[in-house]
Amino acid sequence: MKAICMKDTSGPQGLQLLERDMPVLGPEDILVEVRASAINRADLLQTKGLYPAPFGVPADIPGLEFAGKVLRVGAKTQRFRPEDRVMGLVGGGAWAEQVVLHEGELLPIPPHLNYREAAAIPEAFMTAFDAMVMQGGLGRFGRVLIHAVGSGVGSAGLQLAKAMDCSVAGTSRTADKLEQAKALGLDVGVLVAEKPAKFASTLKTAWPGGAQVVLELVGGHYIPESILSMAPGGRLLLVGLLAGTTCELPLGLVLGKRLHLVGTTLRSRALPEKILLARAFAEAVLPLFEKRTLHPVVAKTYGFPEVAQALADMSKNDTFGKVVLEW
Amino acid sequence: MKAICMKDTSGPQGLQLLERDMPVLGPEDILVEVRASAINRADLLQTKGLYPAPFGVPADIPGLEFAGKVLRVGAKTQRFRPEDRVMGLVGGGAWAEQVVLHEGELLPIPPHLNYREAAAIPEAFMTAFDAMVMQGGLGRFGRVLIHAVGSGVGSAGLQLAKAMDCSVAGTSRTADKLEQAKALGLDVGVLVAEKPAKFASTLKTAWPGGAQVVLELVGGHYIPESILSMAPGGRLLLVGLLAGTTCELPLGLVLGKRLHLVGTTLRSRALPEKILLARAFAEAVLPLFEKRTLHPVVAKTYGFPEVAQALADMSKNDTFGKVVLEW
Repeated sequence: MKAICMKDTSGPQGLQLLERDMPVLGPEDILVEVRASAINRADLLQTKGLYPAPFGVPADIPGLEFAGKVLRVGAKTQRFRPEDRVMGLVGGGAWAEQVVLHEGELLPIPPHLNYREAAAIPEAFMTAFDAMVMQGGLGRFGRVLIHAVGSGVGSAGLQLAKAMDCSVAGTSRTADKLEQAKALGLDVGVLVAEKPAKFASTLKTAWPGGAQVVLELVGGHYIPESILSMAPGGRLLLVGLLAGTTCELPLGLVLGKRLHLVGTTLRSRALPEKILLARAFAEAVLPLFEKRTLHPVVAKTYGFPEVAQALADMSKNDTFGKVVLEW
Repeated sequence: MKAICMKDTSGPQGLQLLERDMPVLGPEDILVEVRASAINRADLLQTKGLYPAPFGVPADIPGLEFAGKVLRVGAKTQRFRPEDRVMGLVGGGAWAEQVVLHEGELLPIPPHLNYREAAAIPEAFMTAFDAMVMQGGLGRFGRVLIHAVGSGVGSAGLQLAKAMDCSVAGTSRTADKLEQAKALGLDVGVLVAEKPAKFASTLKTAWPGGAQVVLELVGGHYIPESILSMAPGGRLLLVGLLAGTTCELPLGLVLGKRLHLVGTTLRSRALPEKILLARAFAEAVLPLFEKRTLHPVVAKTYGFPEVAQALADMSKNDTFGKVVLEW
């Protein structure tokens, strides 16, 4: 099979299209012909040697999500058969023509979506669902603050929260992205122009009670302002660190408001946890795609051989939603 | 009734013994004759105007815990009768001859303990139990790191964790306190002599897997080292801020290890939450006092009129366990 491989850790320019062995199918696994994938910040870090693949996945083929069709099923599997249209998350290796994973991790593609659209779903929507709902306890009519609301995870979280009748506040460094987010239902948009970021006073005016959940995709200097913006008992889910890997933490507010700060990542989880998330997602979220309540947001599509260009585009931060790759 | 009142917010020297009105008994309340109370860091802050009493408790009478006997019971109460020996937590007002609280918040005193011993139980043991077990999810055979292990809450947490067959590591700035903690079962004692504190490398040697729960009673510069010392999925319960109200937070570790940092305080909670904690404590912890597995740790006892001296002594950090006041 063909695969996008890292020849070194020099960044996107170190990626090249190579011929590789097919992945090995275990008895509980499904072999999928990948038709499309998407890019994530984690891929960029991996190409620079900053986020090595976990044990058990190809060390030099990035790619965390895919959409495609089933090629072969393991002897002990029950849920899928060849030709089924499927999508999912993997710990790596999705930038290839084939990928293998446990059947419990696999999701069916909603019938009305093509592969390119489906490839924009797994990482964005599963991360947002897991963080805001499963770990953050966001409920109907809640108040959630989403940073980088124009990103893949941000725009997915926005849609999910609106599907739950929540109020959503979002930040972006680009006015145009806030406009696009408003079309998806964003209630309070805050343009963050300065550093350190300032948004707590705007939030305080809009929501005197504070945000119950914060989907923290930016980190760094956003965190002290996020904490100022939170309701007593609020939960901040730390998913991304774009703005930096340290911050000054106001401990008095964390204690006095009884806040929860929770670091989270999907990639390093054990298989049973990944299966549980896939099942919860299939039950709670996939029907919302079928009802056309949720929509994958594809900013741009590239062929796999153009992956270095796709990564460069994502780094410019001017895309709204996901950047997709297809064979 | 007599009460220790704050005539201003000048600190302990602003406290004076005055005659005050008796508290008003509601239909679901119990009126208690206070025989002993204890002092807490929060009292010291309150005398300086830094930790005002919450709504509904006397603004100028400190005191968060008591042991005494029931004087009168409200018309709708069912659980206690006059002369019953009781103890409990209040949001303030315990440094008085009488205190009133909802019957659901009240706990019976284990029969073999006197009032002075009982007064050393509520704040220390309920805080440690709520933080480590209820919120921290500490289970049997777990690994817990307790800072200021010679403090009231620290020594209570140590005993509770040992009663659950946990391994316990503890820090102190005083070698003598570590010795006393070892007599209570401390497995790994770390003397913290420098600032910023360094204990993570010692912990790493003792526990390669890291601490699953951290009872963070010190805060400030202890937190980055605590985070280094934690196991993946670990929980840090932020209870005290003696070492400072900010810290540099290593976000990469929080995210990568999927840590939970949880701020907690008992005082500001709503009544139903306080009642739930009192019931869980009565079921899970009080029997351990009756079995002589747990022991209140009384460092020193003062008469109520000597409260300023008692506060000064606590500030010196040379007491192991609780400083008690009695009428």
